[in-house]
Amino acid sequence: LAAIRSLPAVCIVWQTAMIILFGVFIRYNEEADTHWVEHRHTKNISSDIENDFYYRYPSFQDVHVMIFVGFGFLMTFLKRYSFGAVGFNFLIAAFGLQWALLMQGWFHSLDYTDGKIKIGVENMINADFCVAGCLIAYGAVLGKVSAVQLLVMTLFGVTLFAVEEYIILNVIHARDAGGSMVIHTFGAYYGLSISWMLYRPNLDQSDRLHGSVYHSDVFAMIGTLFLWMFWPSFNSAITDHGDGQHRAAINTYLALAATVLTTVAISSLFQKHGKLDMVHIQNATLAGGVAVGTAAEFMLMPYGALIVGFCCGIISTLGYVYLSPFMEKYLKIQDTCGIHNLHAMPGVIGGIVGAITAASATESVYGVEGLINTFDFKEDFKDMVPSRQGGHQAAGLCVALCFAVGGGIAVGCILRLPIWGDPADDNCFDDETYWEVPDEEEDVPPILHYNNHMRNKDV
Amino acid sequence: LAAIRSLPAVCIVWQTAMIILFGVFIRYNEEADTHWVEHRHTKNISSDIENDFYYRYPSFQDVHVMIFVGFGFLMTFLKRYSFGAVGFNFLIAAFGLQWALLMQGWFHSLDYTDGKIKIGVENMINADFCVAGCLIAYGAVLGKVSAVQLLVMTLFGVTLFAVEEYIILNVIHARDAGGSMVIHTFGAYYGLSISWMLYRPNLDQSDRLHGSVYHSDVFAMIGTLFLWMFWPSFNSAITDHGDGQHRAAINTYLALAATVLTTVAISSLFQKHGKLDMVHIQNATLAGGVAVGTAAEFMLMPYGALIVGFCCGIISTLGYVYLSPFMEKYLKIQDTCGIHNLHAMPGVIGGIVGAITAASATESVYGVEGLINTFDFKEDFKDMVPSRQGGHQAAGLCVALCFAVGGGIAVGCILRLPIWGDPADDNCFDDETYWEVPDEEEDVPPILHYNNHMRNKDV
Amino acid sequence: LAAIRSLPAVCIVWQTAMIILFGVFIRYNEEADTHWVEHRHTKNISSDIENDFYYRYPSFQDVHVMIFVGFGFLMTFLKRYSFGAVGFNFLIAAFGLQWALLMQGWFHSLDYTDGKIKIGVENMINADFCVAGCLIAYGAVLGKVSAVQLLVMTLFGVTLFAVEEYIILNVIHARDAGGSMVIHTFGAYYGLSISWMLYRPNLDQSDRLHGSVYHSDVFAMIGTLFLWMFWPSFNSAITDHGDGQHRAAINTYLALAATVLTTVAISSLFQKHGKLDMVHIQNATLAGGVAVGTAAEFMLMPYGALIVGFCCGIISTLGYVYLSPFMEKYLKIQDTCGIHNLHAMPGVIGGIVGAITAASATESVYGVEGLINTFDFKEDFKDMVPSRQGGHQAAGLCVALCFAVGGGIAVGCILRLPIWGDPADDNCFDDETYWEVPDEEEDVPPILHYNNHMRNKDV
Repeated sequence: LAAIRSLPAVCIVWQTAMIILFGVFIRYNEEADTHWVEHRHTKNISSDIENDFYYRYPSFQDVHVMIFVGFGFLMTFLKRYSFGAVGFNFLIAAFGLQWALLMQGWFHSLDYTDGKIKIGVENMINADFCVAGCLIAYGAVLGKVSAVQLLVMTLFGVTLFAVEEYIILNVIHARDAGGSMVIHTFGAYYGLSISWMLYRPNLDQSDRLHGSVYHSDVFAMIGTLFLWMFWPSFNSAITDHGDGQHRAAINTYLALAATVLTTVAISSLFQKHGKLDMVHIQNATLAGGVAVGTAAEFMLMPYGALIVGFCCGIISTLGYVYLSPFMEKYLKIQDTCGIHNLHAMPGVIGGIVGAITAASATESVYGVEGLINTFDFKEDFKDMVPSRQGGHQAAGLCVALCFAVGGGIAVGCILRLPIWGDPADDNCFDDETYWEVPDEEEDVPPILHYNNHMRNKDV
Repeated sequence: LAAIRSLPAVCIVWQTAMIILFGVFIRYNEEADTHWVEHRHTKNISSDIENDFYYRYPSFQDVHVMIFVGFGFLMTFLKRYSFGAVGFNFLIAAFGLQWALLMQGWFHSLDYTDGKIKIGVENMINADFCVAGCLIAYGAVLGKVSAVQLLVMTLFGVTLFAVEEYIILNVIHARDAGGSMVIHTFGAYYGLSISWMLYRPNLDQSDRLHGSVYHSDVFAMIGTLFLWMFWPSFNSAITDHGDGQHRAAINTYLALAATVLTTVAISSLFQKHGKLDMVHIQNATLAGGVAVGTAAEFMLMPYGALIVGFCCGIISTLGYVYLSPFMEKYLKIQDTCGIHNLHAMPGVIGGIVGAITAASATESVYGVEGLINTFDFKEDFKDMVPSRQGGHQAAGLCVALCFAVGGGIAVGCILRLPIWGDPADDNCFDDETYWEVPDEEEDVPPILHYNNHMRNKDV
Repeated sequence: LAAIRSLPAVCIVWQTAMIILFGVFIRYNEEADTHWVEHRHTKNISSDIENDFYYRYPSFQDVHVMIFVGFGFLMTFLKRYSFGAVGFNFLIAAFGLQWALLMQGWFHSLDYTDGKIKIGVENMINADFCVAGCLIAYGAVLGKVSAVQLLVMTLFGVTLFAVEEYIILNVIHARDAGGSMVIHTFGAYYGLSISWMLYRPNLDQSDRLHGSVYHSDVFAMIGTLFLWMFWPSFNSAITDHGDGQHRAAINTYLALAATVLTTVAISSLFQKHGKLDMVHIQNATLAGGVAVGTAAEFMLMPYGALIVGFCCGIISTLGYVYLSPFMEKYLKIQDTCGIHNLHAMPGVIGGIVGAITAASATESVYGVEGLINTFDFKEDFKDMVPSRQGGHQAAGLCVALCFAVGGGIAVGCILRLPIWGDPADDNCFDDETYWEVPDEEEDVPPILHYNNHMRNKDV
């Protein structure tokens, strides 16, 4: 039994399983295979521009930075849980992306001629997206679970994600460029449901560690800023080439800018003496990027993006002020990073904004071809109309919520089993439990300096 | 009256104004509009490559990182003003970029057929550039003004910027790829003039906070390095596609490398015991990027770029050693970050280098077509010759200086009004004034560890 | 004699030499020259796409971040050597890249018609690569040498690098996309040989500074993550356009992910109480990127990449646990950052994996044209076969090792001369020796706050 909760055993066994599954299933796609050069000649493609690496890869790198530095550092704000924040984030993201390549591959990239999944740069972006959902969930349970629990959460989270993503995008045909529904709503409610299942009535025994220090707040700003800056890349990364990517980037850029101002306003308004609270600046400033995710590729219009960002900055900050304490006290949901305010509410808003924007799309605004192109009214869906698309968008949101809450409760049940080595109530938010932490000798004993720091000073 | 200096009121009202103005004026440009697909068909463009997102967007992201992480973290060096540095930088940049889209849009991107400003990725880069000017100005007054004052500074700064930019680039037809004149000279003298107007004779009452601690200096190096690394993208971001971008990146890369060596040399030479001063390494190493801004797209030649960097490293470091104390004592200019050394002097040098390089351009070096292409000797300016272009470059520098000093003094007058809630002389450089600062409990009270950190250890 | 070890003198003289050499030798290449527009017209190239900046530049920027932030911050883990880590890294990289442009230029980019080196973006990437070798070497001697010694190390290191690179890639015709042999094996053994020559029997006198503190470990994670995230760009940066770049990125992405899991497993397995050690997470997680460097562009297959990463995470972590103490005690090699575990062993493994993968390449897997294209079996090497190519790869690895050890011992002899101002044994790992370090006044004396932080509060 000890082996199940043993971190080394889980890592080695799961990684070995990945190798076997990759060996059986995963191959390079056409663009990444050495046969490309032959395809090129047979297809009479004169230059390599058609297969150029740089038509997606810059977006991949921006998203990659968000996953590892963005999410990782955003969670370093606790005074003694920075190792766990950035380190466990690193671990579960590295595992999750492998599992996501498989799960998403079976649904989206399976080549039926040979039964292999063919991967390329776009799959790497999608795997990173999938992992983002699980890292959001991590935010709710930060400091309260063991690394093995996180890996289990990620295993099931990625699995659920791939299924709900397939249903929402392919079956229901909802559009969700930046994943307001698929990533943020799902990830946040998945994590909150797990946190609810793992409720600790005596968590106040760790109160001494449940806060930030000056420098840990600055570290967290590194995460905030890299998320904030690269969010336009996140929302545009897998959008169609052409006008969609431009629009997604512009909308996201604007929504995020508006969010910063209203976050500052509300933070100052509700604090004593009008001071600002770093928690709000670190988190609520990002809500606009979440909320504009679905509609980023639509004709939301620049002022529309600003309005979305405006509202979300207010709602998210008010969430930190009022809702988080309420949820902890009355709903028994302990949400370490406040993901309900940063991802859940803005994600749902994003889904609703997407549904409304889609439903109100007209040929006069989009153009005939533009409408078809933007909403992909082709093949099986060539008879769709905007109003019905709006309904499909709303249905997508519901699916994300159901998978998140249902899956979260189920996984929470599993994680409540007393076998995972989670920290005791008075050891939460403490890196000591899982990490070798250096002694914090503030006073490095000064040796006597006779002004001869360097050898052979007087040569 | 209290409302005028109330941060929440200013943020909400100004953001609302932005939404209204964006609603009236701002639309997507052709590349970002859904009608693109129809344009493509009518224009017989076979693939989306012509409208590819990645022909500017990677530069945008690099510049974006410079604005938020670069400038933000560069100013975190003060021991207790890191929240203000990175947080207020975030706030004013987020506001400034919206206002810049409008101001620059009216001058450069107004579509006269429908009276709308059509924005795309290039406008986002230019808005970030415009904001950079205001963030430079922030460096001079860091720790001495309130957030509302910063927003006022930014409002007027962006306005002045858009006008001087229009005059310099369009009316005078000076070239300024990396903004030595338009951004750095303007931003720095604008900030210095404001700082002069806001002179505090008793600032020494805050001396205990007017310095760095070990870790705050390391945080500042994050800012330094992201500025340094991405500066080639900054100087090449809006240069013409083709050879110009290559040249701008190469020149900037080289100039910055040379600056590092001379900065280290001078820093070591003028310190006791030959030690290095972190202030110099954090700041003066960037001077080469500023100074090569105007001439980066010209045929400055690799060795020319090295010479510019060489000189600026020396001048900038000497500025920190001698000029900053002099300016504070005799000219009553208190310059918290030393922007005079990092932006003002190198910016002026950059303008002069640009004028000389332009004036000495010859057809033998540039080629006939190359000369026309590089200096844009077309349409109204098809009769220009290099020597006259040099004169126009010099005129551009003068315009930047006039706008900066004139505008700075005017805005400084406004900011002297006793209504803005600026900190008292003994509260400067102190995050306590505007932020909820966590208690710095060095000694987390250790609870007794019976070696049972984890629950269910012995399952 | 004092001048030789004087940092200012060395910086100024060497930088001046660079200017002269650049003046004599270095010019823009065709893509960066203003004559491009004429070439374009004569060659009938209709658009600038053929010369587009963004076909390499995004990779350059990612590599650039790895060099300055990645390597720089990875070494900040020591409690009182963060200035030296990030500052000296900055200095030697800035010098090294200039010298590398010259050295590599003479071998690879010399235009025999006019005797000039023609540089462009690809040269900048290669210069950064070359510098990487020297920064790896810095890891072995971190905290034990002076800045002048580092500059000397870099001068000779770049020179040796350029020669061995030319021999391995051009003479022997080995392939080494990500530089497992050329960069990592060379850099690591070069540094280790120097460290061996500079062995300090009494280094334990600096033991009080030879460790991390909590925040310095978090800073180091910034370096780790930026290296980890951008490694796919590193390994694909100079690969041929087309399928090679895609494959290199995918393989590296996967190898690195696998490494994280096995590193965590082994770290936990070999620590008391199953805790994780930050040193392992910071370093061994990167071993997969090193080891997949050579074979990244080959048909290593996704599962092959995972296997390489799997093994290297284990080997590298075990190296930190067992080999580093052994090497210090018995082989007299003091390796501050453990580069033997992060770069040397994985580099050699990478060379071997490359040789095996090349030797076992078949036309059925690669395709006829694919084989020629991937291994560049053209011109002088058009009769090569995979098995022989495998031998050439192995020969390349030997050349890298010989240059590294031979060169390192020679340079180590020079650096043992008692003229360089290296720190005394009890002053190693101490920024005080070379930097003005701010007083660490933990307790900022609080002034009395009468709740009137702001001036004109009651207006």
